[in-house]
Amino acid sequence: MKKSPLQIARAAYQPKMPASIQGATKLVEGKATVSVADQAEIEKLFPNTYGLPIVTFEKAQAAMEAKAINVGVILSGGQAPGGHNVISGIYDGIKSINKNSKLYGFLGGPSGLVDHKYMEITDEIMDEYRNTGGFDIIGSGRTKLEETEQFDKGIEICKQLNINAVVIIGGDDSNTNACVLAEYYKAKNTGIQVIGCPKTIDGDLKNEMIETSFGFDTATKVYAEVIGNIERDANSAKKYWHFIKLMGRSASHVTLEAALKTQPNITLIGEEVEAKNQTLDDVVTYIANAVKARADKGLNFGIVLVPEGLIEFIPAIKKLIAELNDMLAANQAEFDTIAADEKINYVVSKLSAENAALFKSLPASVSTQLALERDPHGNVQVSLIETEQLLAEMVAKKLAAWKKEGKFNGKFATQHHFFGYEGRCAAPSNFDADYCYSLGRVAALLISSGKTGYMSSVRNTTEPADKWLAGGIPITAMMNMEKRNGKMKPVIQKALVKLDGAPFQYFCSKREEWAIETAYVYPGPIQYFGPAEVADITTLTIQLEHGKKVE
Amino acid sequence: MKKSPLQIARAAYQPKMPASIQGATKLVEGKATVSVADQAEIEKLFPNTYGLPIVTFEKAQAAMEAKAINVGVILSGGQAPGGHNVISGIYDGIKSINKNSKLYGFLGGPSGLVDHKYMEITDEIMDEYRNTGGFDIIGSGRTKLEETEQFDKGIEICKQLNINAVVIIGGDDSNTNACVLAEYYKAKNTGIQVIGCPKTIDGDLKNEMIETSFGFDTATKVYAEVIGNIERDANSAKKYWHFIKLMGRSASHVTLEAALKTQPNITLIGEEVEAKNQTLDDVVTYIANAVKARADKGLNFGIVLVPEGLIEFIPAIKKLIAELNDMLAANQAEFDTIAADEKINYVVSKLSAENAALFKSLPASVSTQLALERDPHGNVQVSLIETEQLLAEMVAKKLAAWKKEGKFNGKFATQHHFFGYEGRCAAPSNFDADYCYSLGRVAALLISSGKTGYMSSVRNTTEPADKWLAGGIPITAMMNMEKRNGKMKPVIQKALVKLDGAPFQYFCSKREEWAIETAYVYPGPIQYFGPAEVADITTLTIQLEHGKKVE
Repeated sequence: MKKSPLQIARAAYQPKMPASIQGATKLVEGKATVSVADQAEIEKLFPNTYGLPIVTFEKAQAAMEAKAINVGVILSGGQAPGGHNVISGIYDGIKSINKNSKLYGFLGGPSGLVDHKYMEITDEIMDEYRNTGGFDIIGSGRTKLEETEQFDKGIEICKQLNINAVVIIGGDDSNTNACVLAEYYKAKNTGIQVIGCPKTIDGDLKNEMIETSFGFDTATKVYAEVIGNIERDANSAKKYWHFIKLMGRSASHVTLEAALKTQPNITLIGEEVEAKNQTLDDVVTYIANAVKARADKGLNFGIVLVPEGLIEFIPAIKKLIAELNDMLAANQAEFDTIAADEKINYVVSKLSAENAALFKSLPASVSTQLALERDPHGNVQVSLIETEQLLAEMVAKKLAAWKKEGKFNGKFATQHHFFGYEGRCAAPSNFDADYCYSLGRVAALLISSGKTGYMSSVRNTTEPADKWLAGGIPITAMMNMEKRNGKMKPVIQKALVKLDGAPFQYFCSKREEWAIETAYVYPGPIQYFGPAEVADITTLTIQLEHGKKVE
Repeated sequence: MKKSPLQIARAAYQPKMPASIQGATKLVEGKATVSVADQAEIEKLFPNTYGLPIVTFEKAQAAMEAKAINVGVILSGGQAPGGHNVISGIYDGIKSINKNSKLYGFLGGPSGLVDHKYMEITDEIMDEYRNTGGFDIIGSGRTKLEETEQFDKGIEICKQLNINAVVIIGGDDSNTNACVLAEYYKAKNTGIQVIGCPKTIDGDLKNEMIETSFGFDTATKVYAEVIGNIERDANSAKKYWHFIKLMGRSASHVTLEAALKTQPNITLIGEEVEAKNQTLDDVVTYIANAVKARADKGLNFGIVLVPEGLIEFIPAIKKLIAELNDMLAANQAEFDTIAADEKINYVVSKLSAENAALFKSLPASVSTQLALERDPHGNVQVSLIETEQLLAEMVAKKLAAWKKEGKFNGKFATQHHFFGYEGRCAAPSNFDADYCYSLGRVAALLISSGKTGYMSSVRNTTEPADKWLAGGIPITAMMNMEKRNGKMKPVIQKALVKLDGAPFQYFCSKREEWAIETAYVYPGPIQYFGPAEVADITTLTIQLEHGKKVE
């Protein structure tokens, strides 16, 4: 396989890790935990894995030769930079514990465990993937591990391969399922441990003990690079407003971090739009006002960042979507008989006055799509809406109206962009390479210590890697009960952007200035070499959350 | 102004330059030149700047103190990484010749010269922009310097500021105009010299003496980074064909270089499509065949690179556009009376059978746009066609037909991307930082040597920078006569992709393998630090053109 010069240079990178887990290590048990909410229910559902203590690893006097351990690893869900380094961390970790240890990869995600599809990871294979992006070493998948039948199939293959532990690398749902699996295997006394690792570029799996999910650092650095380049272009050409949509359907962390890094004129944060009960027109007016204010200063260009999930955060749109789904379901037969060019009018006639007005205010391309394109379950497809184009069109319409009224005298030409796939499989930054490798090494230590139902934890990440703290957190401690598909389920609480948190508050203190001035910052591409302040620093989100100054 | 850590680190970078121009330098005159074609006409049009010798700069024994020179610099046309370094090269060059030299920047492009808008560049200003992307130091513009009235306005301001020379940093057209200006100033005995510098990310301003236009290296590195990331995602998720359009309307160099760097499955080269007289259906069938071949191997994912100008390279589409323009112009009054939903049928009824069939074969969104959206001159707007989406839709349609016939059994889901603005203003790579700085230093030497009508030339760029060759090329030597707006004009010959050239030939020797196999290469982001083979190497296009092995 041909490799780029950077691929070749990068293969030799030795990830940094906490000093406490270099060499002999001992496990120290901390206080027993409780779940973040709904303690009684969670305890009842997880009798064997609830209330466990937080554990940390500290330097020990002398290493003990431990017995060989066999581990099966699973990549679950969407790609995130650093997945291969978690695997290399596990690999090196279990081999350093005992050179006869073996690592198996279950292929194509959780279904590999159920369908008994696996491969053994060897030195040769592992070395091909160190410090690389992607999940292609064993593939990923979106099968959910929720049924006891699946769990039992897992036991079969683990017994067959003499696997002591399964490591699931995934987001909040996958780690919830890891804990259910851990509980089941513990209850059945199978001797199979289950450990989770926090993955997702969206950054919405984090809490006091998990400072960040891996991939968030690298992905936001890639997005910030291209946003910064576009900002510099906007500020040179001085003729376009660029509307840039970024991945992140459930939470706006990616957009917020990108904004902190690049200081664009306008940044929309879904959680704020929802909390303030803003309408689509509120959002459009907010952008249009900034365009006008800059135009009044002769600046007919700018940058708008939009989180992918914005449209679903707007309460009025949520209501419209809900009514559309109900109405179309109730009138399916009649709707099908309506002529194509009459369907929009039909929809308007059937909606409540409020929703009909909102529906009519949408650009034709969006209303047509909402009315006509539905998913296999008959639901309207909100995810197909190109929010960045929708906003650009609606702002243009509003400014045209203002121009007629003499309220706006500038120019407004737009470009739009969507960045997502560009960042999910980037080669991990030094931070993610180090963080992921450390998470993998810690997972190996948790397994060797006999722990199950834990998530690998590496903290103190605003300091240099040798000062990071290594340990494990009982997954049940992160859980609460939430309604899913109509039923209450124990799940890891999703971390949305906290409106009273330091990152958002810092952003709020600056955004008025950023809107009017041209205060762009150009982060440039990820650097793997060079000074530590360029190559090793992690996100502004983490730094602000830990009280660091970012000026 | 807040700066990112990389901006701060990068400001300290000292660009490398040819050893021959470090310290005392002498000018060596080479052979007299002739234009690449139409010698008699070009000589007649440029009596004062035709037939000049190529010049090179070589190390001299002792530096001579030269008199102070005042220079005015102009950025012309689209942004390209490295423009600020050309300016810092001129600045340091003229200051090193005599510390009382002054550099003026004409603001907002060539119109700054005509309208007398300028600023003096000081140490403080210059240091803010060293090694940065963008053209924001003095702004750029697209005004063409073609009229003697403009030239005379230029004389006024040069006399007023005591400017000895104007440096025009631009593409082929801007350098053509630089030469016309040089001829005019020489003929009028103004004593004002004019020097050009070769800029464009498109890579289409090059020849034997100009190895590359600046910005091409950096821009293609940015595009290759994100294409590589998307390839890794495709190869991990294994569910999408990504259609990626890249900037480059007149030539496909950017797409070819990106393909050489990343080895995608399918790469379309406009020059080949035109030379082979391919139809849109030929192109669609070519892609569909590759999709089928990969699907037969179980690979339902891939990458297609499309140059922005592809659609205009297809001879049949060119004919359709020409007939559409003529037909709509001839029938404007009647067309305006046709009801909106009848306009398409009207257009079809008026076209020749061949063009009507092609028009009808286009997706509705494209045919509607061609028929209804016209520019201020009444022409159809080919540039608005989203070629990557057009191809994805047409390939999907063909595969659906093949599926019905039992010829195709795979899956075909697509994503599309357009990369352009992401690369135009990136901070220059080490190569572009060094190359541009050297071009600027050489421009200063050409001015100090009394030359006019020359383009700054830095060659031997596949070797380390200290071995680069510095000199100047008479711009008339690059010219031929071409028809522009109905009239024959002297212009610099545009460098299209040569189908018998080494870069294209290498690509041809590999593309069948790349189409079927997953042979992706992941270049990763531009590195400014680290090993020279990672940080300093330039494009594969240049390397292949110079007979280097690239395996």
